[in-house]
Amino acid sequence: MRFKVSAEVEFAVTSASTVLLGIQPFRSEKQRILEEALMASSPATIREVLSPVGEKRFNIIELAHTGNITFSYAGKVENDIQIIPADQLTDVPIASMPVDVLSLLNPSRYCQSDRLYKLAAHKFGKIDHAFEKVMALRDWIYDNVEYTGGITNTQTSAFDTITEQVGVCRDFAHLGVALCRALTIPARYFTGYAYQLNPPDFHACFEAFLGGHWILFDATKLVPLNGLIKIATGTDAAETAFASSFGNLNFQRVEVNVSSLDTTFQPVDASSTTQGYSVS
Amino acid sequence: MRFKVSAEVEFAVTSASTVLLGIQPFRSEKQRILEEALMASSPATIREVLSPVGEKRFNIIELAHTGNITFSYAGKVENDIQIIPADQLTDVPIASMPVDVLSLLNPSRYCQSDRLYKLAAHKFGKIDHAFEKVMALRDWIYDNVEYTGGITNTQTSAFDTITEQVGVCRDFAHLGVALCRALTIPARYFTGYAYQLNPPDFHACFEAFLGGHWILFDATKLVPLNGLIKIATGTDAAETAFASSFGNLNFQRVEVNVSSLDTTFQPVDASSTTQGYSVS
Amino acid sequence: MRFKVSAEVEFAVTSASTVLLGIQPFRSEKQRILEEALMASSPATIREVLSPVGEKRFNIIELAHTGNITFSYAGKVENDIQIIPADQLTDVPIASMPVDVLSLLNPSRYCQSDRLYKLAAHKFGKIDHAFEKVMALRDWIYDNVEYTGGITNTQTSAFDTITEQVGVCRDFAHLGVALCRALTIPARYFTGYAYQLNPPDFHACFEAFLGGHWILFDATKLVPLNGLIKIATGTDAAETAFASSFGNLNFQRVEVNVSSLDTTFQPVDASSTTQGYSVS
Amino acid sequence: MRFKVSAEVEFAVTSASTVLLGIQPFRSEKQRILEEALMASSPATIREVLSPVGEKRFNIIELAHTGNITFSYAGKVENDIQIIPADQLTDVPIASMPVDVLSLLNPSRYCQSDRLYKLAAHKFGKIDHAFEKVMALRDWIYDNVEYTGGITNTQTSAFDTITEQVGVCRDFAHLGVALCRALTIPARYFTGYAYQLNPPDFHACFEAFLGGHWILFDATKLVPLNGLIKIATGTDAAETAFASSFGNLNFQRVEVNVSSLDTTFQPVDASSTTQGYSVS
Repeated sequence: MRFKVSAEVEFAVTSASTVLLGIQPFRSEKQRILEEALMASSPATIREVLSPVGEKRFNIIELAHTGNITFSYAGKVENDIQIIPADQLTDVPIASMPVDVLSLLNPSRYCQSDRLYKLAAHKFGKIDHAFEKVMALRDWIYDNVEYTGGITNTQTSAFDTITEQVGVCRDFAHLGVALCRALTIPARYFTGYAYQLNPPDFHACFEAFLGGHWILFDATKLVPLNGLIKIATGTDAAETAFASSFGNLNFQRVEVNVSSLDTTFQPVDASSTTQGYSVS
Repeated sequence: MRFKVSAEVEFAVTSASTVLLGIQPFRSEKQRILEEALMASSPATIREVLSPVGEKRFNIIELAHTGNITFSYAGKVENDIQIIPADQLTDVPIASMPVDVLSLLNPSRYCQSDRLYKLAAHKFGKIDHAFEKVMALRDWIYDNVEYTGGITNTQTSAFDTITEQVGVCRDFAHLGVALCRALTIPARYFTGYAYQLNPPDFHACFEAFLGGHWILFDATKLVPLNGLIKIATGTDAAETAFASSFGNLNFQRVEVNVSSLDTTFQPVDASSTTQGYSVS
Repeated sequence: MRFKVSAEVEFAVTSASTVLLGIQPFRSEKQRILEEALMASSPATIREVLSPVGEKRFNIIELAHTGNITFSYAGKVENDIQIIPADQLTDVPIASMPVDVLSLLNPSRYCQSDRLYKLAAHKFGKIDHAFEKVMALRDWIYDNVEYTGGITNTQTSAFDTITEQVGVCRDFAHLGVALCRALTIPARYFTGYAYQLNPPDFHACFEAFLGGHWILFDATKLVPLNGLIKIATGTDAAETAFASSFGNLNFQRVEVNVSSLDTTFQPVDASSTTQGYSVS
Repeated sequence: MRFKVSAEVEFAVTSASTVLLGIQPFRSEKQRILEEALMASSPATIREVLSPVGEKRFNIIELAHTGNITFSYAGKVENDIQIIPADQLTDVPIASMPVDVLSLLNPSRYCQSDRLYKLAAHKFGKIDHAFEKVMALRDWIYDNVEYTGGITNTQTSAFDTITEQVGVCRDFAHLGVALCRALTIPARYFTGYAYQLNPPDFHACFEAFLGGHWILFDATKLVPLNGLIKIATGTDAAETAFASSFGNLNFQRVEVNVSSLDTTFQPVDASSTTQGYSVS
């Protein structure tokens, strides 16, 4: 699929500051950047870097001048979504996992899987097949957590959400990641652009490592999986924030847009238990 | 300094299992492994790997047989401790930080720096110099947190310790890391062998990124800094556990020993405010 | 039923101290104290009082002398357990609740019902009948929480237990109370002597206010309900501790014994869904 | 002092519901209700009751009809503020405390004093005099906690606030209560009308039991202590909410007004370390 994505992020700067801005789609074999441009409304020193942890590229931006500044990104992206038969999406033995995947079994700031072992085992432990386990926990989150904005905040974690059962995409994704890890399935947080998300915004979901593939799951069920354009994957939202700011500046607003460049868009069926989807 | 280190770790295995064992000193330019051997008391498949996150090597061990198994490590290590004048241990501007260091500003499972911003600013924000800030927070932890075993557990985090003010080296280190990050100083958890630790055990302390160096701090003040032999550094204890086990096995015991191979050992003065020490 | 109960509690006193000791069975119309004696192994000023909150009598004990002191209580108690048909154990309308019962809808230190509303509604909200609701949540606790000593501590609360699913009778009772309150059913913590509890100790369970009665539930299912001799009921364990100490003294040990004074003891069937039991 | 107070509270009712409404000043020897009226904008069954725990009167209101309903309270109140010399505001020995006061040493939902013992001892333990201790902790809260609306919510507790250091009057009061209890000083939450509070709203502060008196403290320092008209005191906000609703109704708005009926109003000096003030 080919998409046109754009984002505008505005800050009010009151003294020299630095921003880490991660709004560009990730560049990989499966996701090609056909063209892109990042512009600033006033002078700024911008340096693009690749994160050594997770999969993320971002810009280190030095802001020497005060006043409001807007960053505008626009890009054309072509990505593939790989369909993998469910019978291949099995548990990977610990000893066969790539070393960088092993660390995604660890608990993290917002995904305290170490506190969810018994609960996860009780709820999902009897399901034999790994892919079905993750589908079941995704559906449990969807069925039990109420999608409501303005109640949770940036400190809300999976340990809160499993009981309080309310939140936004970030909270749904953290809980998915935490439950997978509690079941000894490596999992990571996924942020990106999302075609047909209404109202338009960045979106978060999660990936589980099954049969050697990173399979995509969205516990909010808000958007088609093949309309997701990956910005970053990482341990959790702490590692994949679209903006981290240091100094005297305040976030003002963000505007996000995604359109399809293909004449037809056929959403994949994320409820299928016979196949999984991968974009990483 | 040159040290002889050894560790014995025993597990009771009741079905085929996997262990990630991290008890070998880290190998780096500053820390040379002169000789070493890792032995198992019964057959096991052992593969040494290097972690892509943090600085850590560990063994992926497959245990096919039931019964007790003991892993014995013994090594001779030579390491250097670098003395750096305090006036060089300044804040590093965000935009000048290496990319892998930037991620050590993020909150993590046991170091929720995002919840400590105001507290850290109130307590230490007025101290100008970065090295003095970290010395002050190290001393605050030492003065206020009571070193007591058996009260905290593997779920205890810096957010608990800042208020409950009791714990072991792990808790002291997590709090040090969290307070540094809350002050926009990258910090990481350090585990290792510790000469003169009584009773002998693995030890934990923390490193702060100051003036481009990883400077070592021990808020427990239990051991000389130049008697520390690094096993791993990482985000927090979630990433640097000496053993992670998967399957049906139970940890039985660990025994640790460190002796000096030098005829004299002169402990460094960790209370000096004119210089910092680095082993990484 | 008639029971003989006894308890010995020992403290080591290192300076003048005060203890609030609550080990005597509660005196009420339904539970008669046939005879009793509280003795101290060395001189102490003992004053018995009745708590104005909850239902509890306790002793305010002033200890002027250092050294170990043992309090020995022995009593004979006759109590009644009332059988109430399930169809009478309905929801009580808020406006018809006695005023002192209303406050037992509030969240408390260890029973944060305000954080469990959605979870409780999802799990038990569709059950029509109030008594069946409480039976269902009691069974859910029994089925999902593992009874294990030494993992939880005096700070563990229902919000922890609902997810971590491990604990002792105290934790089982707190979770029962919290879930009831989250379902708008007044509930309180119950502590007492427990016939046939093995090993002997004080026990904790919970009461729910149904059809105008305080109905007893034990999510641990460890003992027969008609072998329970009430010491106290209250908001939660914060209000019903068997000993609270102020000053320089350390709890050393407690020993508890219960025997039946009746020739036959027929345990009631707590799994019956056609009737509830009340001792308050 | 004499005050005119009024409050309007509006709910949207979508099915038969019940509200517990606590907006009337408490009636006591020290606080006389000269006249008052509580009116409803549409028919409702209203019954005034006195809470058996804490000091609070409230109305149990049954709403049989759907639609919006507004409750309007207006009253004239005369109260006394008692000045007590600091040297009388000493620690009360545990054994001399009234029994109902003893229970206000317990931790509660929002005041987890059991987790603050060491911290409170470190910060305030060396201050000899009980009144000075509470003045010191009140000042510490004022100096370190930032008064900001919209960040904390009804689940925020003293354990959060001690570290996160941001909140509203409710959070300031909870922290004051928790720190007192951690220092073995009975304390309770106080809600009321507050003359000169800007913008007008209900206010919260706390009382500590010193020298046999309930002494009033306001860690926000927003209003004069002698302009406070008590609605309720209790364990914490869980027990003293101005409205608790059961059924299908939503809180819409509250409006509060206080004016002085005396020709002159001379604010007391709450920074005085030579005397305390009591209104209970």
